[in-house]
Amino acid sequence: MQIHEFKGFPNPARVRMALAEKGLFDAASFVQVDVPGGAHREPAYLAINDQGVVPSLVLDDGTVICECTAITEYLDHLAGDPVLTGRGAKERAMIHMVQRRVEAGFLDAVATYFHHATPGLGPLIETHQNPVWGERQRERAIATMHWMEQRLAASDYLVMDRFTIADITAFAGFAFAGFAAIPIPDACPRLAAYAERLRARPSAAVAA
Amino acid sequence: MQIHEFKGFPNPARVRMALAEKGLFDAASFVQVDVPGGAHREPAYLAINDQGVVPSLVLDDGTVICECTAITEYLDHLAGDPVLTGRGAKERAMIHMVQRRVEAGFLDAVATYFHHATPGLGPLIETHQNPVWGERQRERAIATMHWMEQRLAASDYLVMDRFTIADITAFAGFAFAGFAAIPIPDACPRLAAYAERLRARPSAAVAA
Repeated sequence: MQIHEFKGFPNPARVRMALAEKGLFDAASFVQVDVPGGAHREPAYLAINDQGVVPSLVLDDGTVICECTAITEYLDHLAGDPVLTGRGAKERAMIHMVQRRVEAGFLDAVATYFHHATPGLGPLIETHQNPVWGERQRERAIATMHWMEQRLAASDYLVMDRFTIADITAFAGFAFAGFAAIPIPDACPRLAAYAERLRARPSAAVAA
Repeated sequence: MQIHEFKGFPNPARVRMALAEKGLFDAASFVQVDVPGGAHREPAYLAINDQGVVPSLVLDDGTVICECTAITEYLDHLAGDPVLTGRGAKERAMIHMVQRRVEAGFLDAVATYFHHATPGLGPLIETHQNPVWGERQRERAIATMHWMEQRLAASDYLVMDRFTIADITAFAGFAFAGFAAIPIPDACPRLAAYAERLRARPSAAVAA
C-alpha cells in the first residue's frame, strides 16, 4: 500500500502513528506531495484525492481511501493488537465519540485557527481567510484542552485505560498546536504530562 | 436505552433512522430537549451532554454516548442486518470515508450556513454569527452535492450498492438543506432522485 502525504504535517502524522502502532509501517511506501508548493491542488494529485488534502491511502488494487479516521479503520481491521478503534458496541462507540470530539474541538480547531487567523501556508494557499472565525476556533481548541484535562483525571489515556485512535488525534493536535503557538494552559498539568507520554511512544518517532 | 433529542431536527433524525433501519426503534425511549427554548444549555441537559448538543444516547447502565456517528456505531454493533458501517477493513473504510465527507461537506456545511448566515434559531441562540463563513459553507454544501451526483453515476447509494450510514447522513443533509432553502442544483438529477428514494424508506417516516 502507498501513502501519499507531506511528512511532518499533522494529518499525515496520524496515519504514520497508526501504521507504527499496528506494526504495519514497513508494509507501506510513502509518496511526498509538496503541499506548501501547491502540488495538492494539481491535477496529478486531484486524480487521487479530489478534495486535495493529504494523506491518501492507495491500496494495491487501486482503491483510494481518504480521511485519516477511515484510513485508521482500514489499518485497524487488517491486523491484530493493539486495537485502536475498539472491540464491541460500547467500546467502539466510546472511542468513536471521543475521537470525534478531539478531532473537531482540538485538531481541526487548531488547523482552522492556523489557516484563518495566522499567515498559515502563505497567500497563495490561504485564499479565503476569515480571522474572526479562526480566533473563535482557537478559543474552542483551548476549551477542548480543558475538557481533555478533566477526562485524564480518571485514566492515562482519553478513553478507557489504553491507547486508542483518540490519542492519535490528540497527538497530532498537540503537534499542530505547538506549531501554531497555542500552548497547553497552565491549568492543565495532566494534559501536559499526557502530551509528553504520547511523544515518548516509539510510534511518535516515525510520525512527525 | 434512552435518546435525548429534539424531534424534527436533522441530527436526531439520523439516530431515529439508524434505529429504524436496525429494527431497534421500539427498544428506545425518547426524551425531548427544548432546543429552541434553550434547554440544551441548561445544567440538567449539560450534565448528560457537556457539549449541549442533541441527540445523546443514555444506556441502561448510565453510559452516555454522543455524536451521531458514535451512536450509530453502537447500534450497528448491537444487532444484525442491515450492516450500516460495513464489514471488513476495506468496506468499513470506504463507508467511513464517504460518511465523513457527506457530514463535513454537506450536513455540517448546511448547518453552519443556517446558524451563521441566516437568522437561524434566533438571537438568543445564535450568539456568534459569522455570515461570511456561513456563506462559504453554503458554497461547500453545493459543491458536495455535485460530488454526490458523480458518485451516484455508478450506484443507487453513495457507497457500494446498498444503504449505509453515509446515506443516513445525506438524508439528514437533504432535510436540513430544504429547511435552510438550499435547493438541489438542477444539474444534479441523480441526486434529486436519490433524495426521493431516501425519503421513501420506511425509516424516513419515523425520522423526521
